[in-house]
Amino acid sequence: MADNTNTNPTANLPPLLDLTIDNITPNTIRINSQASDARLKYLMARLVTHLHDFARETRLSSDEWMAALLFLISCGKICSDVRNEFILLSDVLGLSLLVDNINHPTPPGGTEGSVLGPFHTHDAPVLPNGSSMTSDPEGEPMLAVCTVKDLKGNPLPGVTIDIWETDSSGHYDVQHADRDAPSERCVMKSDDEGRFWFKGIKPVSYPIPHDGPVGKLLERLNRHPWRPAHVHFKFEKNGWDPLVTALYLKGDPYESSDAVFGVKKSLVVELGKVDKAMAEQYGVKEGSWLLKHDFVLSTQQETEELRDRLAVEELEKLGLRMKLVDHLPVPELD
Amino acid sequence: MADNTNTNPTANLPPLLDLTIDNITPNTIRINSQASDARLKYLMARLVTHLHDFARETRLSSDEWMAALLFLISCGKICSDVRNEFILLSDVLGLSLLVDNINHPTPPGGTEGSVLGPFHTHDAPVLPNGSSMTSDPEGEPMLAVCTVKDLKGNPLPGVTIDIWETDSSGHYDVQHADRDAPSERCVMKSDDEGRFWFKGIKPVSYPIPHDGPVGKLLERLNRHPWRPAHVHFKFEKNGWDPLVTALYLKGDPYESSDAVFGVKKSLVVELGKVDKAMAEQYGVKEGSWLLKHDFVLSTQQETEELRDRLAVEELEKLGLRMKLVDHLPVPELD
Repeated sequence: MADNTNTNPTANLPPLLDLTIDNITPNTIRINSQASDARLKYLMARLVTHLHDFARETRLSSDEWMAALLFLISCGKICSDVRNEFILLSDVLGLSLLVDNINHPTPPGGTEGSVLGPFHTHDAPVLPNGSSMTSDPEGEPMLAVCTVKDLKGNPLPGVTIDIWETDSSGHYDVQHADRDAPSERCVMKSDDEGRFWFKGIKPVSYPIPHDGPVGKLLERLNRHPWRPAHVHFKFEKNGWDPLVTALYLKGDPYESSDAVFGVKKSLVVELGKVDKAMAEQYGVKEGSWLLKHDFVLSTQQETEELRDRLAVEELEKLGLRMKLVDHLPVPELD
Repeated sequence: MADNTNTNPTANLPPLLDLTIDNITPNTIRINSQASDARLKYLMARLVTHLHDFARETRLSSDEWMAALLFLISCGKICSDVRNEFILLSDVLGLSLLVDNINHPTPPGGTEGSVLGPFHTHDAPVLPNGSSMTSDPEGEPMLAVCTVKDLKGNPLPGVTIDIWETDSSGHYDVQHADRDAPSERCVMKSDDEGRFWFKGIKPVSYPIPHDGPVGKLLERLNRHPWRPAHVHFKFEKNGWDPLVTALYLKGDPYESSDAVFGVKKSLVVELGKVDKAMAEQYGVKEGSWLLKHDFVLSTQQETEELRDRLAVEELEKLGLRMKLVDHLPVPELD
């Protein structure tokens, strides 16, 4: 019996004949359920159900089906080492925000997350506190003075912080074909008092890359491709939930219509100005822009407990019989 | 007011701040609803709903999300003029069969459809009836003698018929890197009595291309990539519903486990043998394989009436307030 199953994986399945609008979904799920990975089986079952329901509810036409396939091909073709059109697509469809919220729920008092976007790199220079990460003489100088703390207000030393923003033209370094070194990005460590500070430039609003298929889609939806001015931050420390977030400038024309749904009220900040004392302390010009912010991380355990509780609540609401394995739902076996 | 809307398309929308697991879906739908095309608006609303529900129900992890994006990129990258990995993906997920059934429902007595697959081309030679479309000396010769009729049994002359199959090695011509001309494919016209006949080879079972991401997916699902032996047919005539179908050989080991869900009982045929009289009449060897089949087309109107009726029934079942525009549902306006 076991041997049989090995040599002919369809031996225990119903003959796939005469599939119709109505029986194709359960039958596709059944044939996919030969997978040994319970999580993959569940993902495929839900994927097939939603995909088929979408086609049935919309009576998807053959032309629309083909248009969708061609759209996906063109997204794939434009991807490169420095461009990920599928992240953009996920971003403009609100999926990235949703996945981030599911995986990194914020306990009360914690700093909320925001979309990673496609422009994070792994080659940013590690710089000591106080360094400048800008090489853009056109940018308006900005001093950032920040802290990282835990939910109880204790400073967190030794946190690795990735920081990245566009130049004053609204482009990330990787968007310049002649990029020879990282720019407007760096990696820092918080000091013993949980502080980190750096010199950058005042961020500007910019459109997401809209010369590709995602840009065409936005155009057809009468949506603009702009993101409000922001600086990205990514915090990592062993035992703490990694935080991907960004700070947005108050008053930006796109503050409440971000093309990728990244803005949260708690992440909107007002820039100040560097006074004389600070100018001397940090070695910057008096009157430069000043970004001050206190970030709050939660421990991995705090986030996981919240994530599991929310997952169980959601699955109960849906009436699905699930257990959590590594924080991810898989169907309960009878 | 109208000017305002033109210059700032988000003027009438809620501020997209503090989006959460619960409100991201209606808000994404609202911002997408600025599109002027009612059908596109509906498609996007259902797409976003299903995509988000999928992520919520599965508590999709960030790693799974990224794995899915990388999978889509690799599907896009492997696509070429002669390979469409997204059609394959749609095929193995049962979506192609579903879309075909929705768009080309079969009235009683009509020939059922089957999946188009990714190997139809537009460069097949137009050949007179009786021609050979094979250039494969290794194939077992097969004579096909067929008719095309309407639902009442009247012969249909002047139907354009695309016919294609693999060579005896299980590969379509376009899968050979050194292809210099079409082979194992042709285009014919039915004669005044609705007949068409040609010389090909006995089809063989073959695996769909499984050296790419779709093949890897099948492997992880413990599914085989095989299709039972078949010949593809595509019928076109003005005023008649185009029919994409295939005939499958009875007794094939993959007859009831087709990797792309193409087989229907009514399309499974048993080959006969050419007798002496036929051998003389058609100029083939006695004892060659013989494929005889009568195809039945429905008119465009017959299919459209059935399609509209099934669409209305389905939408009523779902409780959706829809009207059909060009046979496709769009939301009813209040």
